Amino acid sequence: MFNYTASYTDKYQLTMSQVYFLKGQKETKAVFDYFFRKLPFNGGYAIFAGLEDFLLALDNLQFDEKDIVYLRELGYHPDFIRYLEKFRFRGNVYSSVEGDLLFPVRPVIQIEANIIEAQIIETLLLNILNFQTLIATKASRMRQAAGDRYLIDFGLRRAQGPGGYYASRAAFIGGFDSTSNMRAGRDYNIPVSGTMAHSFIESYDDELSAFNHFADIQPNDCVLVVDTYDTLKSGLPNAIAVAKKMEDNGVRLNGIRLDSGDLAYLSKECRRRLNEAGLHYVKIAVSNQLDEYIIKSLVGQQAPIDVFGVGTSLVTGQPDAALDGVYKLAWANGKPRIKLSENVGKITLPHKKQVFRCADNDGKFVGADVVTMAGENSADVMHHPMYPLKSLSLAKYDKEPLLHKVIENGLRLNNPKTVAEIAKYSRNRLEKLPEEYKRFDYPHIYKIGISTQLQIERDKLINEFKK
Amino acid sequence: MFNYTASYTDKYQLTMSQVYFLKGQKETKAVFDYFFRKLPFNGGYAIFAGLEDFLLALDNLQFDEKDIVYLRELGYHPDFIRYLEKFRFRGNVYSSVEGDLLFPVRPVIQIEANIIEAQIIETLLLNILNFQTLIATKASRMRQAAGDRYLIDFGLRRAQGPGGYYASRAAFIGGFDSTSNMRAGRDYNIPVSGTMAHSFIESYDDELSAFNHFADIQPNDCVLVVDTYDTLKSGLPNAIAVAKKMEDNGVRLNGIRLDSGDLAYLSKECRRRLNEAGLHYVKIAVSNQLDEYIIKSLVGQQAPIDVFGVGTSLVTGQPDAALDGVYKLAWANGKPRIKLSENVGKITLPHKKQVFRCADNDGKFVGADVVTMAGENSADVMHHPMYPLKSLSLAKYDKEPLLHKVIENGLRLNNPKTVAEIAKYSRNRLEKLPEEYKRFDYPHIYKIGISTQLQIERDKLINEFKK
Repeated sequence: MFNYTASYTDKYQLTMSQVYFLKGQKETKAVFDYFFRKLPFNGGYAIFAGLEDFLLALDNLQFDEKDIVYLRELGYHPDFIRYLEKFRFRGNVYSSVEGDLLFPVRPVIQIEANIIEAQIIETLLLNILNFQTLIATKASRMRQAAGDRYLIDFGLRRAQGPGGYYASRAAFIGGFDSTSNMRAGRDYNIPVSGTMAHSFIESYDDELSAFNHFADIQPNDCVLVVDTYDTLKSGLPNAIAVAKKMEDNGVRLNGIRLDSGDLAYLSKECRRRLNEAGLHYVKIAVSNQLDEYIIKSLVGQQAPIDVFGVGTSLVTGQPDAALDGVYKLAWANGKPRIKLSENVGKITLPHKKQVFRCADNDGKFVGADVVTMAGENSADVMHHPMYPLKSLSLAKYDKEPLLHKVIENGLRLNNPKTVAEIAKYSRNRLEKLPEEYKRFDYPHIYKIGISTQLQIERDKLINEFKK
Repeated sequence: MFNYTASYTDKYQLTMSQVYFLKGQKETKAVFDYFFRKLPFNGGYAIFAGLEDFLLALDNLQFDEKDIVYLRELGYHPDFIRYLEKFRFRGNVYSSVEGDLLFPVRPVIQIEANIIEAQIIETLLLNILNFQTLIATKASRMRQAAGDRYLIDFGLRRAQGPGGYYASRAAFIGGFDSTSNMRAGRDYNIPVSGTMAHSFIESYDDELSAFNHFADIQPNDCVLVVDTYDTLKSGLPNAIAVAKKMEDNGVRLNGIRLDSGDLAYLSKECRRRLNEAGLHYVKIAVSNQLDEYIIKSLVGQQAPIDVFGVGTSLVTGQPDAALDGVYKLAWANGKPRIKLSENVGKITLPHKKQVFRCADNDGKFVGADVVTMAGENSADVMHHPMYPLKSLSLAKYDKEPLLHKVIENGLRLNNPKTVAEIAKYSRNRLEKLPEEYKRFDYPHIYKIGISTQLQIERDKLINEFKK
């Protein structure tokens, strides 16, 4: 894990905090919302990931000695630095459940703390949650495309530095089966997979010797990469020869891997020839610049592929590469706060809030999350956040509150969840989402609304500023 | 810095290494090339970054206790684990200079080590260098667009986790002036910048009070964000009022920041009104989803912008998000090695090699790097790597060797360079590159060739495999 300290932040957080501090506002209470405005990948949903990592980092967050020395060098006020030496996050965190489905506009997390603490942690929160949510969502799309075929994350080498470590975690939450990333496997208890590189074959004078050595040492976990020289003329015949020899020794070749060429054609041809040789059990794995669209296309072409290894596009969240999550002030110093904008879509929602998700009698989500004031226990109607004429009756639906207090006065209220638990929860939630929200092309739009009370309060505030 | 240990690798590296180990090949010497095949962003050059971080990580690379426990859990052979307990990189590293210009195909780094060491470090090398090179290149493009205007990296909140920490380093190498990222500022000695967020304004009951408080505490570093409520009707008039009051106190408002709206129009209007108020010295900073194309457009429209703050597209290297760097075997067990492919562009270059860059008498690069065998001291002609008929005479040019031994038997030969030194070197190198390689649209193609001797050796190897 990266050694987060409280200097993992933007300079302006400290500059603003210094003003608050020196102006006697260090006890000013504030509420900030974390939310995003646009679903990644033009998709119909996002998967919330990164929460446990964020909470752990928050729990340990301090300015270390190097930070303090650096703050002095930069000329911050000695009294402020003395205050920062004792900095700990002592506020409250209300959060969505990690692994849950997320949609735009509605708060994912609310931070309630003194304003200095709330500012200093902003960058850390956005940095961890924006990225893992992006990657879990990407992984989930690949899972949609792959059905129940096996998905392996191969991305560390092309990842954005140690982003790759966290990407492997998020990919597992989003539905991947395993990772090649040993360090993530070790720390997050994610299954690890790996076969052989072309260099292994090339380091031998011939392909068959390389295969034989490998099978000899790895009889129970042997996947042979067959495209180093020529897939159909060399790699596949050699792999079949090795598989037959393995059978003589009472073991079975696990699979072959294709890493170039036309994967639909080659997988079909390899399957045919493997079957002809009686090797129906040998699996076919493929890799090489895959994304959810290529996986979907291969599945659609009935390519007999058992395992997809995905790298770059998964761990970097191509083509988006970032989730546009923001952290906006909703309450400060005893009053609701708002950011206006010429773009109505950028006007924020004031006040401390709750979010409810509507479900049918059979537990299926109906495609409506409603944002309410924190005190409301439900909402019978929701209004479009921007168009006052659009509203939706929610009376007949079950409503589940989505924000839960997870940190109180700086202390965690629950035990951390394992990545496996989070992944399982995510799978269950996704099962409740109707299929039309999961398709890649023009997915159905999940509705986000605001309660009547929140609408009234917000509009009151807007009108105050207009005057 | 991320706590890299030797488990920061792909599982297949360890699986292959175990085969090598148990088959008695742990002393087998190998040479691997690190190179990429395609310039990022459809540009004309790349900037090499990440080397010092890689060398530092390599110097400290070991399997720690947790790694060893984990390897046992995964069932690796006890003898192999005992070997890994003493694992250190003891090979040689030949590298391009960090900050230099890079082009496709030619080796950027060569690793010469026993094959297990060379395999285990592959993922770490690719993970660090692919990413920082991508970001330094992106930053350099923004520098091309911005001319001598001030560039600040604002990206940490949208970065790919701790990738943002390394992105700030790479951005500085590529030509940025400063970063908002305190932690990177602290550790890499990069200048840090930061102003105020909208939340600061919103936490007050009115904008003017917020500005006054800020100016009061930060009289010498005061940049006011003016678009919280209404840029021209509220933010700018308030900022002008504050600037005038500051003048009365003998200090000067540093600048204003625009974070939304039409930045060309607003910057012109703000400049005009600031000048009318006699505030010619107040700088105009802008931010909001900038990239090199928007910066270029704003400069082209003569927008009077002094400072650009760039976030997401910089630190995630949008839209590419990854550099396609690879690590290929060139020599093993006393023989040259090659990977063939139906795609001739993917055939690798065997043998230990050197690269020379050609320059004119006046020191300008002529757009030609030639890859030779390691023993060659020069090359009078270079051949296109794929098309035998295309060649270029190099006789009249000065030739500079680009690969230098930086690690010998695991020990560093030179002192580490500071990020500032690397950035300066990079600037000097870029000055030697003719302008036509720097343009965004269809840049001139920098030629990469191979020497006659390397061509002969490679073709000999290809023909051996064809038989």
